[in-house]
Amino acid sequence: MSRIALFPGSFDPFTIGHESIVRRSLSLFDHVIVAVGQNSTKANLFSLQQRVSWIKEVFADTDKVSVSSYSGLTVDYCKEVKARFILRGLRTSADFGFERGIGQVNKALLPSVETVFILALPEHSAISSTIIRDIIRNGGNASQFVPDVIKFDK
Amino acid sequence: MSRIALFPGSFDPFTIGHESIVRRSLSLFDHVIVAVGQNSTKANLFSLQQRVSWIKEVFADTDKVSVSSYSGLTVDYCKEVKARFILRGLRTSADFGFERGIGQVNKALLPSVETVFILALPEHSAISSTIIRDIIRNGGNASQFVPDVIKFDK
Amino acid sequence: MSRIALFPGSFDPFTIGHESIVRRSLSLFDHVIVAVGQNSTKANLFSLQQRVSWIKEVFADTDKVSVSSYSGLTVDYCKEVKARFILRGLRTSADFGFERGIGQVNKALLPSVETVFILALPEHSAISSTIIRDIIRNGGNASQFVPDVIKFDK
Amino acid sequence: MSRIALFPGSFDPFTIGHESIVRRSLSLFDHVIVAVGQNSTKANLFSLQQRVSWIKEVFADTDKVSVSSYSGLTVDYCKEVKARFILRGLRTSADFGFERGIGQVNKALLPSVETVFILALPEHSAISSTIIRDIIRNGGNASQFVPDVIKFDK
Amino acid sequence: MSRIALFPGSFDPFTIGHESIVRRSLSLFDHVIVAVGQNSTKANLFSLQQRVSWIKEVFADTDKVSVSSYSGLTVDYCKEVKARFILRGLRTSADFGFERGIGQVNKALLPSVETVFILALPEHSAISSTIIRDIIRNGGNASQFVPDVIKFDK
Amino acid sequence: MSRIALFPGSFDPFTIGHESIVRRSLSLFDHVIVAVGQNSTKANLFSLQQRVSWIKEVFADTDKVSVSSYSGLTVDYCKEVKARFILRGLRTSADFGFERGIGQVNKALLPSVETVFILALPEHSAISSTIIRDIIRNGGNASQFVPDVIKFDK
Repeated sequence: MSRIALFPGSFDPFTIGHESIVRRSLSLFDHVIVAVGQNSTKANLFSLQQRVSWIKEVFADTDKVSVSSYSGLTVDYCKEVKARFILRGLRTSADFGFERGIGQVNKALLPSVETVFILALPEHSAISSTIIRDIIRNGGNASQFVPDVIKFDK
Repeated sequence: MSRIALFPGSFDPFTIGHESIVRRSLSLFDHVIVAVGQNSTKANLFSLQQRVSWIKEVFADTDKVSVSSYSGLTVDYCKEVKARFILRGLRTSADFGFERGIGQVNKALLPSVETVFILALPEHSAISSTIIRDIIRNGGNASQFVPDVIKFDK
Repeated sequence: MSRIALFPGSFDPFTIGHESIVRRSLSLFDHVIVAVGQNSTKANLFSLQQRVSWIKEVFADTDKVSVSSYSGLTVDYCKEVKARFILRGLRTSADFGFERGIGQVNKALLPSVETVFILALPEHSAISSTIIRDIIRNGGNASQFVPDVIKFDK
Repeated sequence: MSRIALFPGSFDPFTIGHESIVRRSLSLFDHVIVAVGQNSTKANLFSLQQRVSWIKEVFADTDKVSVSSYSGLTVDYCKEVKARFILRGLRTSADFGFERGIGQVNKALLPSVETVFILALPEHSAISSTIIRDIIRNGGNASQFVPDVIKFDK
Repeated sequence: MSRIALFPGSFDPFTIGHESIVRRSLSLFDHVIVAVGQNSTKANLFSLQQRVSWIKEVFADTDKVSVSSYSGLTVDYCKEVKARFILRGLRTSADFGFERGIGQVNKALLPSVETVFILALPEHSAISSTIIRDIIRNGGNASQFVPDVIKFDK
Repeated sequence: MSRIALFPGSFDPFTIGHESIVRRSLSLFDHVIVAVGQNSTKANLFSLQQRVSWIKEVFADTDKVSVSSYSGLTVDYCKEVKARFILRGLRTSADFGFERGIGQVNKALLPSVETVFILALPEHSAISSTIIRDIIRNGGNASQFVPDVIKFDK
């Protein structure tokens, strides 16, 4: 049975930390689906279309990664795309506390899905979409934190 | 002097974790008041009336628990109902960090009130009202995380 | 049924933080037993006899506190002295992580016993027996961290 | 070269914890600039003008502290005022996790600026602007948590 | 290329938490090697031979798990047995902090090896070999925390 | 008054993380004393003489850093060498919890001394003397984690 993993997130925007997690996980999984969650209660800085398009460009070099968007529960989307694994990166203790809660609830909702974690590289440990949005809103240059294909209009 | 404890919260909605904390605390206290806080700056998923009514039904089997609502400071409500203890459950380190801050400030505001903590059961450690609201908003079934008397219209 | 709590520890030595936890818990419990654990694998700075004698002197003013020593499992000693509660103070997140593990295992070993936590006062948050022993071994004066009745020979 | 430090924050309102950090840092720095950040996405309880004016009054007794406001990135403002250091207080582990992320990103954006931390006093460890605003909104008296010159209209 | 994972540890003794991590990881890996580390500076309660023999019995039902012992660096043993992954379970924030350090150093020593984490089940979150040894040393019954095939002489 | 800082530790051995903290602190302090603590209860891997000699070689290029050893309390040694600051690096939340306790007790013992923290670089966040000793004891090569002048006999 094929090992398909879902890598869910808002990716507003996708960072070099996200890219590193996905690329390093390719030795573990047969296929990784980067799944951009549509969360109606969250105001995004970049449109869903823009985010999906950027991530597709980042992984244009490999057919082991596909990109899609979804709404609803993550575990329901796992069932839909036959992903038996949810992939997550861990940077900090606060990350871990949050991810453990989500992971345990996802397991209660769909016991057949396993959440698998790998570590962010130390040099990526402070990079988050939140902090990048904050830099952009304050007129700063966040290009060192995102893949080269992502260009912000300044 | 009677040992009356206040169990304050938004309870939006009340969970099986909340129920467990209250029931297990009944060996410690003579009476527990589940006090639903009215917080004007927070948008709730369920109305105050609905939340109070559900909790009353959960504890219909015991007269050691009463249910009420309050606005204003928790310590002021403690004085009003003559509660010398505030009861809180602890699930995670993040919980503890947050609760310690609230507990220390409450003690500074009203030194005679003591905050008393008991541990969430391990199987309840990921269950929070926030995660339940998130499941409901995404069209999922959260019934395993709330007492049986609480029925969500789907 | 009487509310008896066990306050277990090595108390090598007993600190003003320990004293504060016990005194503040007396509004909650009918009786508190300060129980000095004998742990053969731990080398102590002060003898068991000395530690017990100091704590008895600290609480000479109240008959709601008694002092004893025990070996074996804490939950077995709870059964022996009919204590339905284990009392613990919480100072830091590291404390909490450690105490939660012990508390959950104790509950698995003896479900009828509940661990009850209260917060250390902020000004006691750095005081531990370990740090006091360290000060003493390095020739420092640790008297501000222990009750007045405890006198170290310098 | 003069050692100038920036102490950035919302200070909505300034607390006795903030004051303590600044005063204790004066042995370390030649000059400290308390810099009130203007964050358009955050609704403040007190106006920028009010916050700046209060902090100026708090430090009216010393010319080693100046007060100003800024918008945009903190590191850009550091360059503007020639501050080589960013001063921050640490109270809790959650604080640290958050501050470490900000500090690492600031260092990536401007390597010449160093973030310097000192510890909040234990008795200030629960005091935050957030909790003070919460007390005020609930009709409580928060005056024990702010410098004497700050008077809230009740 | 086959996905072989190493699950390293002292396993003094092996717990139901360890068993759960290995079994749940079998959907992810082609083969898991439970590798009992020989650490000369640590005094063990059970002999290496006993520990290996117990774990072999636990996994007698599957040929996807093998058991061995090693000394020296974990990454050197990974090279020897051609394991590209190190498997670890995560229970608590303290676990995570510790495991992140080890994982980052292992990656610096051997970049081709990836550490993969899955979550302990909530009901296993307090179970550790350390706490089991402590129960045994204090004359308690720890059988509920270990696989059925492990029998302690009492 | 001159700003002299003490950087205390066991330094068994000194790491590139330690070196980075000291060098980056030189913009803040007029002089930094790297002070190797002699702790009779801890068995060291490298002799005191060896450790002091290595650190002197690391900072042979600057006269703003001196190296010495001490026994007894750190705050007593601060008084002796007229250091008004204790310098510490912070890597992780566990570090912070530990350092906060030490820092608060040092302040209680000698209020005139302030502990000042700077952040470890992200790429140094997993490097500790403990992990280096562990690598050496297991026959590994730890040279990437220590300054070039430190050569281990293999």
